Amino acid sequence: MKSGPKPAFLFDLDGTLVDSVYQHVLAWQEALEGIGVKLPNWFIHRRVGMSGGLVVSSFQQETGRILSKQEIAKVQELHGKCFLKRLNEVKALPGSCELLHTLTKAGVSWAIATSGNRGPAEKLLKLIPVEQDTILITHAEVQHAKPDPDLFLAAADKLSANIENCVVVGDSIWDLLAAQRARALGVGLLSGGYGEDELTRAGAYRVYRDPADLLAHLYETGVRPNHSE
Amino acid sequence: MKSGPKPAFLFDLDGTLVDSVYQHVLAWQEALEGIGVKLPNWFIHRRVGMSGGLVVSSFQQETGRILSKQEIAKVQELHGKCFLKRLNEVKALPGSCELLHTLTKAGVSWAIATSGNRGPAEKLLKLIPVEQDTILITHAEVQHAKPDPDLFLAAADKLSANIENCVVVGDSIWDLLAAQRARALGVGLLSGGYGEDELTRAGAYRVYRDPADLLAHLYETGVRPNHSE
Repeated sequence: MKSGPKPAFLFDLDGTLVDSVYQHVLAWQEALEGIGVKLPNWFIHRRVGMSGGLVVSSFQQETGRILSKQEIAKVQELHGKCFLKRLNEVKALPGSCELLHTLTKAGVSWAIATSGNRGPAEKLLKLIPVEQDTILITHAEVQHAKPDPDLFLAAADKLSANIENCVVVGDSIWDLLAAQRARALGVGLLSGGYGEDELTRAGAYRVYRDPADLLAHLYETGVRPNHSE
Repeated sequence: MKSGPKPAFLFDLDGTLVDSVYQHVLAWQEALEGIGVKLPNWFIHRRVGMSGGLVVSSFQQETGRILSKQEIAKVQELHGKCFLKRLNEVKALPGSCELLHTLTKAGVSWAIATSGNRGPAEKLLKLIPVEQDTILITHAEVQHAKPDPDLFLAAADKLSANIENCVVVGDSIWDLLAAQRARALGVGLLSGGYGEDELTRAGAYRVYRDPADLLAHLYETGVRPNHSE
């Protein structure tokens, strides 16, 4: 008997492998203040993980204030700076390294796809040291970031994997909407601070607490880490 | 015909009237690091609003590490210091002042009941200036903080209100569990960063975005701000 092909895993980064969402929230709030815009933290929290351009659009829509091109450029630049200032507080999430190591050992290929920029992403990757060169797709490599499927499609392509055999792992509804649009299987993690139901309603096949909890239930995603058959 | 008595309103403070939850999360994380404990932000986030003692118990349960009396005292003291350091970032939530003002004008009595300490609570109250002296109940005035009902019972008592005619407004599941235990009507606000479903499952009669959104739907809670009948 033939079983289905082994899945490949496509991971989001912030809130999924590293514990950086709360720092992003406060960095956005500080950046917005820098251009005179006030928005509450919970509102910002629910927009982290989208493409930076869409985040800024949602801020404009919420406040009813249209930002100039200069203001948009400034708030994005300030966010980068304010996040960098908080980077030393960021840690790996429980089980990140073990999960990636287990996948590699089980012969399951994986990559990371983030809406963020390459600079901060590469700094965050240092928190989760792995044996192999990590495939990292960032906003610069695709036309549209999440919730468009482009990042995950590019990551699957880089792995020579069929997107329909891929498991997308993310902490935000933007990852899960992108997973649905790509026809991948979406797995949600609570480690970015969304509620379970929000992730389920965005299309999550399963929701786990964090990478360690996903590792403990890897068999539910079609990976058998302990034996080959 | 006689209609039901006018409700009284009992408000939580952090995440309900002022935007301080994300600062509390990072303050707890920093405090925990000070005693060598690592916990992810999302896990801490979901425990903010409980009594400080229960928060620390939940940290012990999660890490499996029993803290000494000295460590418990130290982490609570550090949390206070780390939060104070971030206090200047905290703002009022949209609509807080307007909501309190409208209730006062409509002859509806209200009070604030927080699991926190009086010192920081009084500093936060300065962000929401109101005409009257505010009744503020803190952990020191009762035996058990949330999710026990003591804080809300004491606040209702101070207002000479029957707790069964009270509307409890809070952003965390701890407020809503306490409301149920007190037999008050619980209203959830998304402004502390919980998901809508989490608040509904904890017993919220209604869930609104923030104080401004509650103000816009005040009639759903039995208050008619614009006319007396």
